[in-house]
Amino acid sequence: MTQALEWKGSYLRIIDQTRLPFQKVYVDLHTIQDVHHAIRSMQVRGAPVIGITAAYGLYLGVKDFPNDHISQFQDQVAAHAEYLKSARPTAVNLAWAVDSITNKLRQLQITDVEQGKRFLLEQAQALHDDDRRRCEGIAQNGVPLIPQRARILTHCNTGALATGGIGTALGIIYKAHQNGKEVVVYADETRPFLQGARLTVWELQQAGIPVTLICDNMAAWLMKQGHVDLVLVGADRITRHGYVANKIGTYNLAILAHHHKIPFYVAAPISTFDFQLEHGDDIPIEERDCEEIRNILGRCEVAPANTSCWNPAFDVTPPEFVTAIITEAGVIETPVSENIRQLKENLKLTIH
Amino acid sequence: MTQALEWKGSYLRIIDQTRLPFQKVYVDLHTIQDVHHAIRSMQVRGAPVIGITAAYGLYLGVKDFPNDHISQFQDQVAAHAEYLKSARPTAVNLAWAVDSITNKLRQLQITDVEQGKRFLLEQAQALHDDDRRRCEGIAQNGVPLIPQRARILTHCNTGALATGGIGTALGIIYKAHQNGKEVVVYADETRPFLQGARLTVWELQQAGIPVTLICDNMAAWLMKQGHVDLVLVGADRITRHGYVANKIGTYNLAILAHHHKIPFYVAAPISTFDFQLEHGDDIPIEERDCEEIRNILGRCEVAPANTSCWNPAFDVTPPEFVTAIITEAGVIETPVSENIRQLKENLKLTIH
Repeated sequence: MTQALEWKGSYLRIIDQTRLPFQKVYVDLHTIQDVHHAIRSMQVRGAPVIGITAAYGLYLGVKDFPNDHISQFQDQVAAHAEYLKSARPTAVNLAWAVDSITNKLRQLQITDVEQGKRFLLEQAQALHDDDRRRCEGIAQNGVPLIPQRARILTHCNTGALATGGIGTALGIIYKAHQNGKEVVVYADETRPFLQGARLTVWELQQAGIPVTLICDNMAAWLMKQGHVDLVLVGADRITRHGYVANKIGTYNLAILAHHHKIPFYVAAPISTFDFQLEHGDDIPIEERDCEEIRNILGRCEVAPANTSCWNPAFDVTPPEFVTAIITEAGVIETPVSENIRQLKENLKLTIH
Repeated sequence: MTQALEWKGSYLRIIDQTRLPFQKVYVDLHTIQDVHHAIRSMQVRGAPVIGITAAYGLYLGVKDFPNDHISQFQDQVAAHAEYLKSARPTAVNLAWAVDSITNKLRQLQITDVEQGKRFLLEQAQALHDDDRRRCEGIAQNGVPLIPQRARILTHCNTGALATGGIGTALGIIYKAHQNGKEVVVYADETRPFLQGARLTVWELQQAGIPVTLICDNMAAWLMKQGHVDLVLVGADRITRHGYVANKIGTYNLAILAHHHKIPFYVAAPISTFDFQLEHGDDIPIEERDCEEIRNILGRCEVAPANTSCWNPAFDVTPPEFVTAIITEAGVIETPVSENIRQLKENLKLTIH
């Protein structure tokens, strides 16, 4: 499996996901600015990968920090954390990763800069390893929900390119396939950035899993024809009441699945939960540039140059449309809101 | 307004809509094969325009037919009619146009070939003129349904490029704008062929009507945000029970509008009704090539070369999701099925 990123000892090597699947271009990120740009321009994307990349970015930001400036070190890290969080406002994993690391750093009361630097790098690597395990856990918990020969509709990309491991929603599909469940997948192309067409189709083809590409607006008709047994998507942020922010078009699918009485599953690690937020309206939604719609992948103009667009990168699905949320800590069923509270207590989660 | 087609005395000049809005390329159709290709490749598209183009195609097919072969003339025209109908199986206006003309030709009992040729050309021109009037009628009937400052979501292209006149759904929008209603339009880009992005945005910009482009998968979130007052689309075929075949993605919008309690209007001339068909399942749905999805406008590949796709060109919206059907003969309100029967009787329609 092609991994989204690899730590090379002193810098982070990523695969430029804006060029996939046609070109395999690796980009080496040496500075925090490089990291910010890679996240912002979506060379790396996928909520978990964004978090891991940002964590490495925290380290890269202070790698060359003068060793005799211990008093300013913490302030520098805090400023870098804010800078990194500004790259993508909706995905909470980014904020979660940098906030939890900077919080721990503060509690550590380091006495020299080298110690602080070492700590940041270890934290990034731990997060990276951790995400691999979380993906495995999500897959383990999700597979029992997938029927034999299930026809699964998915959106965006939630696989190895989006995580530090095998993926979230796509990780479940990989695991179901390995377990002999003969699944077939319909992939929404996922306009405007086409992560479904470019990344999900490519990942599944490489894994030998049958995949059929559709345009986003075909999902309703596909369901109506009886071709979809379940919808399985990822998430970028989930409130404590179960509102799910995910790639634009997810809310669309949730309504359609509800209407056609098809289960709608969300797969995400616990780090996707923002327990501070209650309602979907509380989630900031990133709006991106018109050019992403108007000039497809920067290669194909589809509307006049002076066109106005509306380009929200995410939408929010209310809990009443979510059949279950699959996490590494267990499957959260309806009533989602109550069960999220329960899970949080069981896990004794202190973050957020 | 840029017209989709113009009769030039001995041939049909069309604007190649696959090149719009970036290139204004005119194509002259001299033979029935030219006409078939132009329809099949969607150089001309839009249900009414397809019908008119096919009607001219019937004439072009026999323009050079030997004058002493009167006995074979009718057979030749009948064969041409079948050939033309095969170009796009879903849009009924095509079948309606060629069948109604060939039926009239048979009843005419012509005695020489020249007379037959003249009749075919007159019929095509009459259909062309007629469609202009029908568009006006639809617009007249539709405008009262459009509130002042309405925010209208539309799909595909239903304007001057799709008809012999000002359009169907878009014709109503033009007329509402002329009447000072200060409408604003959201245009679905309409994958895979992007008629919304390429044609509707361009037409509305030329007319000075504010238009915002969105990706198809954003419609649900747009409605949820309260930005849509009504949905207004065209149709390619409507059964006598009110099942509406239209560009893929229309059924999606209908469910979303229903869920968000937003009126969903269909605008179409009477020629769009197929009174022989009852249920949506009876409508043949054209499936087009994967390349249309995989290689956007033949200019931008978005998925690996060996990708499988599902590419239905149309879907069918059941009558329970249709608030009203706006025709040149009046507005058909719910119960749609009963009111279609009534309208048919009032019009004493004998075709179909």
